[in-house]
Amino acid sequence: MKKTTEKNLMVFSGRAHPELSEEVARLLGTELVPTAAYEFANSEIYVRYEESVRGCDAFVLQSHTAPINEWIMEHLIMVDALKRASAKRITVVMPFYGYARQDKKHRGREPISARLMADLFKTAGADRLIAVDLHADQIQGYFDGPVDHLMALPILTDYVKEKYGDQSLAVVSPDAGRIKVAERWSAKLGGAPLAFIHKTRRTDRPNETVANRVVGEVAGKMCVLTDDMIDTGGTIVKAAEALMNDGAAGVIIAATHAILSDPAVDRLKNCPAVEVIVTNTLPIPPEREFDKLTILSIAPLVARAIREVFEDGSVTSMFDGHA
Amino acid sequence: MKKTTEKNLMVFSGRAHPELSEEVARLLGTELVPTAAYEFANSEIYVRYEESVRGCDAFVLQSHTAPINEWIMEHLIMVDALKRASAKRITVVMPFYGYARQDKKHRGREPISARLMADLFKTAGADRLIAVDLHADQIQGYFDGPVDHLMALPILTDYVKEKYGDQSLAVVSPDAGRIKVAERWSAKLGGAPLAFIHKTRRTDRPNETVANRVVGEVAGKMCVLTDDMIDTGGTIVKAAEALMNDGAAGVIIAATHAILSDPAVDRLKNCPAVEVIVTNTLPIPPEREFDKLTILSIAPLVARAIREVFEDGSVTSMFDGHA
Amino acid sequence: MKKTTEKNLMVFSGRAHPELSEEVARLLGTELVPTAAYEFANSEIYVRYEESVRGCDAFVLQSHTAPINEWIMEHLIMVDALKRASAKRITVVMPFYGYARQDKKHRGREPISARLMADLFKTAGADRLIAVDLHADQIQGYFDGPVDHLMALPILTDYVKEKYGDQSLAVVSPDAGRIKVAERWSAKLGGAPLAFIHKTRRTDRPNETVANRVVGEVAGKMCVLTDDMIDTGGTIVKAAEALMNDGAAGVIIAATHAILSDPAVDRLKNCPAVEVIVTNTLPIPPEREFDKLTILSIAPLVARAIREVFEDGSVTSMFDGHA
Amino acid sequence: MKKTTEKNLMVFSGRAHPELSEEVARLLGTELVPTAAYEFANSEIYVRYEESVRGCDAFVLQSHTAPINEWIMEHLIMVDALKRASAKRITVVMPFYGYARQDKKHRGREPISARLMADLFKTAGADRLIAVDLHADQIQGYFDGPVDHLMALPILTDYVKEKYGDQSLAVVSPDAGRIKVAERWSAKLGGAPLAFIHKTRRTDRPNETVANRVVGEVAGKMCVLTDDMIDTGGTIVKAAEALMNDGAAGVIIAATHAILSDPAVDRLKNCPAVEVIVTNTLPIPPEREFDKLTILSIAPLVARAIREVFEDGSVTSMFDGHA
Amino acid sequence: MKKTTEKNLMVFSGRAHPELSEEVARLLGTELVPTAAYEFANSEIYVRYEESVRGCDAFVLQSHTAPINEWIMEHLIMVDALKRASAKRITVVMPFYGYARQDKKHRGREPISARLMADLFKTAGADRLIAVDLHADQIQGYFDGPVDHLMALPILTDYVKEKYGDQSLAVVSPDAGRIKVAERWSAKLGGAPLAFIHKTRRTDRPNETVANRVVGEVAGKMCVLTDDMIDTGGTIVKAAEALMNDGAAGVIIAATHAILSDPAVDRLKNCPAVEVIVTNTLPIPPEREFDKLTILSIAPLVARAIREVFEDGSVTSMFDGHA
Amino acid sequence: MKKTTEKNLMVFSGRAHPELSEEVARLLGTELVPTAAYEFANSEIYVRYEESVRGCDAFVLQSHTAPINEWIMEHLIMVDALKRASAKRITVVMPFYGYARQDKKHRGREPISARLMADLFKTAGADRLIAVDLHADQIQGYFDGPVDHLMALPILTDYVKEKYGDQSLAVVSPDAGRIKVAERWSAKLGGAPLAFIHKTRRTDRPNETVANRVVGEVAGKMCVLTDDMIDTGGTIVKAAEALMNDGAAGVIIAATHAILSDPAVDRLKNCPAVEVIVTNTLPIPPEREFDKLTILSIAPLVARAIREVFEDGSVTSMFDGHA
Repeated sequence: MKKTTEKNLMVFSGRAHPELSEEVARLLGTELVPTAAYEFANSEIYVRYEESVRGCDAFVLQSHTAPINEWIMEHLIMVDALKRASAKRITVVMPFYGYARQDKKHRGREPISARLMADLFKTAGADRLIAVDLHADQIQGYFDGPVDHLMALPILTDYVKEKYGDQSLAVVSPDAGRIKVAERWSAKLGGAPLAFIHKTRRTDRPNETVANRVVGEVAGKMCVLTDDMIDTGGTIVKAAEALMNDGAAGVIIAATHAILSDPAVDRLKNCPAVEVIVTNTLPIPPEREFDKLTILSIAPLVARAIREVFEDGSVTSMFDGHA
Repeated sequence: MKKTTEKNLMVFSGRAHPELSEEVARLLGTELVPTAAYEFANSEIYVRYEESVRGCDAFVLQSHTAPINEWIMEHLIMVDALKRASAKRITVVMPFYGYARQDKKHRGREPISARLMADLFKTAGADRLIAVDLHADQIQGYFDGPVDHLMALPILTDYVKEKYGDQSLAVVSPDAGRIKVAERWSAKLGGAPLAFIHKTRRTDRPNETVANRVVGEVAGKMCVLTDDMIDTGGTIVKAAEALMNDGAAGVIIAATHAILSDPAVDRLKNCPAVEVIVTNTLPIPPEREFDKLTILSIAPLVARAIREVFEDGSVTSMFDGHA
Repeated sequence: MKKTTEKNLMVFSGRAHPELSEEVARLLGTELVPTAAYEFANSEIYVRYEESVRGCDAFVLQSHTAPINEWIMEHLIMVDALKRASAKRITVVMPFYGYARQDKKHRGREPISARLMADLFKTAGADRLIAVDLHADQIQGYFDGPVDHLMALPILTDYVKEKYGDQSLAVVSPDAGRIKVAERWSAKLGGAPLAFIHKTRRTDRPNETVANRVVGEVAGKMCVLTDDMIDTGGTIVKAAEALMNDGAAGVIIAATHAILSDPAVDRLKNCPAVEVIVTNTLPIPPEREFDKLTILSIAPLVARAIREVFEDGSVTSMFDGHA
Repeated sequence: MKKTTEKNLMVFSGRAHPELSEEVARLLGTELVPTAAYEFANSEIYVRYEESVRGCDAFVLQSHTAPINEWIMEHLIMVDALKRASAKRITVVMPFYGYARQDKKHRGREPISARLMADLFKTAGADRLIAVDLHADQIQGYFDGPVDHLMALPILTDYVKEKYGDQSLAVVSPDAGRIKVAERWSAKLGGAPLAFIHKTRRTDRPNETVANRVVGEVAGKMCVLTDDMIDTGGTIVKAAEALMNDGAAGVIIAATHAILSDPAVDRLKNCPAVEVIVTNTLPIPPEREFDKLTILSIAPLVARAIREVFEDGSVTSMFDGHA
Repeated sequence: MKKTTEKNLMVFSGRAHPELSEEVARLLGTELVPTAAYEFANSEIYVRYEESVRGCDAFVLQSHTAPINEWIMEHLIMVDALKRASAKRITVVMPFYGYARQDKKHRGREPISARLMADLFKTAGADRLIAVDLHADQIQGYFDGPVDHLMALPILTDYVKEKYGDQSLAVVSPDAGRIKVAERWSAKLGGAPLAFIHKTRRTDRPNETVANRVVGEVAGKMCVLTDDMIDTGGTIVKAAEALMNDGAAGVIIAATHAILSDPAVDRLKNCPAVEVIVTNTLPIPPEREFDKLTILSIAPLVARAIREVFEDGSVTSMFDGHA
Repeated sequence: MKKTTEKNLMVFSGRAHPELSEEVARLLGTELVPTAAYEFANSEIYVRYEESVRGCDAFVLQSHTAPINEWIMEHLIMVDALKRASAKRITVVMPFYGYARQDKKHRGREPISARLMADLFKTAGADRLIAVDLHADQIQGYFDGPVDHLMALPILTDYVKEKYGDQSLAVVSPDAGRIKVAERWSAKLGGAPLAFIHKTRRTDRPNETVANRVVGEVAGKMCVLTDDMIDTGGTIVKAAEALMNDGAAGVIIAATHAILSDPAVDRLKNCPAVEVIVTNTLPIPPEREFDKLTILSIAPLVARAIREVFEDGSVTSMFDGHA
């Protein structure tokens, strides 16, 4: 009894950021699989798919936004339900990888939660991961299976080049540990000069930052302050101020992941930056938008990656000339 | 280079219900290991132990109360941190096992979240589990390792016997699927007669309950309505009313796990039951306590089990004559 | 070098109940794969497939009947041989899941053999399970992979409705722990009233049953006594007698799995039941058949499930309106 | 809360060959742990330990004799029960390793049951194995963990040297594939000459043996025919006859494992061998004993190995000068 | 969104023996996937595929020749890269299985490196293995997955029959432990008589071989000395000499794997054998070739096996009539 | 049969850098376990321990120096032999973690060899790892188990403070991606100013570095150029030159791991640095030593960590005040 094998792409979405999932599905020419999901009275999550998923090539999207443990658990439960319902292959899509910053033990007796997350998804049944701009490239190695690591960089740099390309730019990292990202920006912006902010500490009170020293030349430059994410905005806003103090012509802030925890919005509104450019890997509710905030959609990137994965194309080639 | 091996009991607590953990530690003659635990701005949890845990026999308590995903994730992260900090053996103590009710697929394409939880804890590094009154005994089999399944039954039945032993008792299950528990109560209460509530459904609207029919004789009896947990209290309160309608002399409600999700407290306050007896496997904040609520402590049971496990004694013997 | 992928369904059978396997294969329009299987002198089992199975979608049927350890071991060895012979996917079909009743520790230091079986099959190489009417729904969660849980209930209830639908029926569970199944029967039989047998124990000799008390109204009713399996028949026959003593109009016994260990046949022949209705998930040799025994075939259900699994259809939909 | 760690040796026995287990326990100065074990009516096995086993160093003995699948399953279930009852370490002792002869695929689509057995025990919870004279040394590598491979050779050769050392001996392998064992015998017997039986096949009917040709010089020698096991005895008895035909002075048969499946006893009784020397790794019921059969006990070897394992001594040193 | 599934065969080669891989690819009508592979300054290996491998059916060839650890590590790294690049299935092809001779513990505290290798490849991501003439058949059981075990025997025996078939042949094993291989040769050569070399040891210096005694009749015969591999050639050359001393008419040496470590070439050149027949499972550089050395290509065998695996054909049938 | 448990520390060494292992053993007051280790003719490695290791707490040291694949494989084989010989716990000590630089995919279709190594050691049987100054902190998360990550920083900074503490120091990172390490140095050196080298690339030939631009103020400073390792020395020597060109008062080079692949020694000898300070995590043969090279021993750090691990002390506390 023989039969030609067919593969069937199905896209699933958790409840954290349905707008992004819908945009991805639309770009793929399909619709999200109807899914019942809600909490029981004691806050346990319930999930059920309302269509057969047997044999499908499943892509499960969830944004790891606050309340992050809730959404990660929903993501895990969705994977478990797919596994038990006989999906053929399960690709977990996490535009923002939750707990990515806990990717090492800074001190003894800490967890490495970023590795734990990879293992939890593997255990639940994930075969593969797709993520955007991981906090550290090494996190790819935390998952025991293929990881497609997408880069939002071209989206952001294309926008900046288009709008500010005629100015004299510098690329600045707000932290010594993130200069590598700034170096990639510099390469994309025609070799713009590089600087970083060195936080020095008081000798008497070693845990207290006293100064944000700018290392590198920024006077007269339009400075692109880059990071992978903006959480409360404290570091990046202080960096913007330090740059202006050092004579920068202006500051643009650019980051992939807009966590925007309080009081990020207030800080950014009132900071000297002329524009704050982010993507929608995490949901930004209308009340947190503000005038100088620009949100670029990550959906085309994610949709194209899903298509390449489904059709056995090449995700690597999506970034040719961009690495 | 030789050395006699020592074992070292250490008790750890998540933040969901520290009072219970403290009581357990006190009963064991020790103190909780000082632990830093808090949320980052985007709600990611951070945990760190402030003392060396190398080589210890670790018991990690957490109550799986609402917001349950938050507390389960904290529990998992605590286990990960213990594993990476070289604890010798990690016993996860969950007085209430979260997601225990999702222990089967009622319909296709549902998760089996109770199994998923067992696997997540195994993956994080748990060697063993201790739990109280699992929703189904089969859940013991979900964990790939030893499970000590403690029974609160003797605590509850001793209390009821002491207080109501001179009355003519009946034991009633609020649901056909839970009669096995009622049977154990009946055995402990000298063979008190058994009844259960049969929920019948309307033929035209099959998902709607029309009647709670009492199956068994309850007229003139003081009825002990028993279940493993009280969540919103709907089922058990309706059962209490049905019993009174059928001529019961009175109703006592008894359950191990007091989830008490809204509107359980209001329902229980206003229901015909004369007393509601529960344990503190889950925290009950003062504002949710009410006059006829009696809370028995589970801490002596948990503490004794931990001691038996640590000293290679017998947990089984704790329930001899009680099974 | 590219090629369109084909899938190829192949059905394999152990030696415990070849008639059922042949019926399933016939319904699928195929034949059992020729297989050499025998014991060596010291009772070790030998198995070899006489056709290439490379790349096939394998369904391996075995009935877990006595001598059950022999047949389970043959089942495991068949899976090992398929794995090493490069079958693409291996689905273990166990119409009766052996050791399902050992699904929890009733007392300390017992095994949980039902979980062990799931793990043994996983280790041997099983990717998926198909089983009929598991003793407890939770057993689905014992296997680390997809389980298709088929229900014989509609087959049995359709038969009863057809033949006894014009009488005044009651549904009776022979044991407090099995009422949930009776409730499903009740729903299928238009809301027939429910009863159960409460076994009480002597206080002086607690392990001895003294009485089978009927809880619920059965007088004048045609009682359908239901259970998932009939082993030695002791419990169910005593229940039938208790029902007649309580004034039942008659008793019909219905169960999915006809283990019929001695002295079940004698007991059932001589009991007050007018008919005993079972399926052929387990083989019933001609010498164990008797007049009032009706055997309904499970093969159409199993065959349809295999077809749905092979064709990525929906097994869930097979039971729509039946849950 | 600190405590000096103690270890506690406990010996468990399946029901296949309790005499051997009792002898081992006695030699260790301990007693078998009281264990309830029986079959349910449908032949499922039930096991329960009647004493606490928490934290013990468990040694579980079972002889893999016929009905072998029954006894192996009991062995697996015993391990599962120990794991779930919190034994600290579980050593499976199989004096005869069941299915050892199925250690490779002779032809395509066969299982490798010897590897499967190793994996099943690992899955059930075995930490370590102890076995005697594996059919192939490579089987040690099938278990993912430490294996103590004991040799009965010194026991057998000491006996032969003592009794027949003054005669002119030759060592003969009944099969080309087993000469390595004969070589070890030869080394122990002072370099006695070696021979083997070459079974030739008819060219027209290739699966039929026509002749047992002796390769090597045996005329006038007292031939020690050695193998690891005697199953039906066909091969070894034909070899004895061929040796006598070639002018051997006499034949002694020696083997570790006395499977003695029918018609081995008849064949051996009536064969030209003057003595048949075996050990009691497998039970030999009185009715299968015969005059020229000598049974040497393996218990002292097994007991000493258990003691070395428990006390962190050296099993290797038990065979120094014997390898 | 549906799509017919295609499978795509891709052949990859390590750097140890590219000629063999190229011949295999050519026979399959394809080309090796372009691969960058080199060492960093500190001898770490770097590998990258220069084409997309997403979804492919990958066959990765490497010859485990000296420096063997280097080439095995390259093989492992190639598998890791394929796994992370989303190859659908990864078949490791090792014409010679490195460390196969360390397939058991000869003495305590040795590794079982042959099992370790199997586990390392599994961990790296191998789904299946293809190997030629394993040192012991049991090694098939070391890998947890399908192994296609190819036999070079027909290639070698066909050559010998063609060239020497008219002479009176005997088959000789250079070692007691390898007679099973000689028996297979004998069967293929029309039942040629069998002999083996028995190495005896001096009683006073037990580790020293004093004599190579021929067991069996070889006088006047053209002896085919067979083994699975020739390493330094010491054993086989001594065997050839012993045969000539015993009156053999001539000696032909035949082996699958030509390791030819120093001083094998010198020994073989100068030994009495008239021809040395091997295959190219391992590379033989031109400077190690010599007049009487005949190299038969293994590529057609490997290529055909890959084709059968890819097309879900039968590898077993390739050896029908040859087992 | 009870016994107090003892633990027994044993230290094992591969052949790559025995001097370091011996120094560690001496500091621990013990000796290396006698071990036979050599290559077979075809370069396969053989290892055997010459003393019983049963039940020991094993620490296995190997330096991952060139030929690195050889030494890593020896390390793996040593672990396998320990596991099979019943060591109780196996801690792999890799002062330099081989393949640490391949800790991410820079481009598609690359391996993540650093993760692969962690998995290979886990598979072989490693329970824990000890490593010094991992190339990226995230590598700790690659191993599924506890990792003690030791820091050589205090050893190096203490030396520099002692010798150069009276000069005006700056800390310089030779690469944008390594500034975090430089920041730690700066903190230890009283907040010395920070700089880094920015390699810019030509726009027309993007893979070619045109300039090493110093970012930060270095004029008149004694610059401490820091990195985790020195391989060929190209980057760090160019950095030293750039610093001198920018007016530095002098340059000191400091790094933990002295790989010193060719032509590192020549480059360093001839570079403007006044001193090159390294540790002996990797062996430096006498012929590669040179005048301005200072080698500090890592042995006291490793020995103390082993002692803390063995005695259940605290490794974290070794670095208190240093993090």
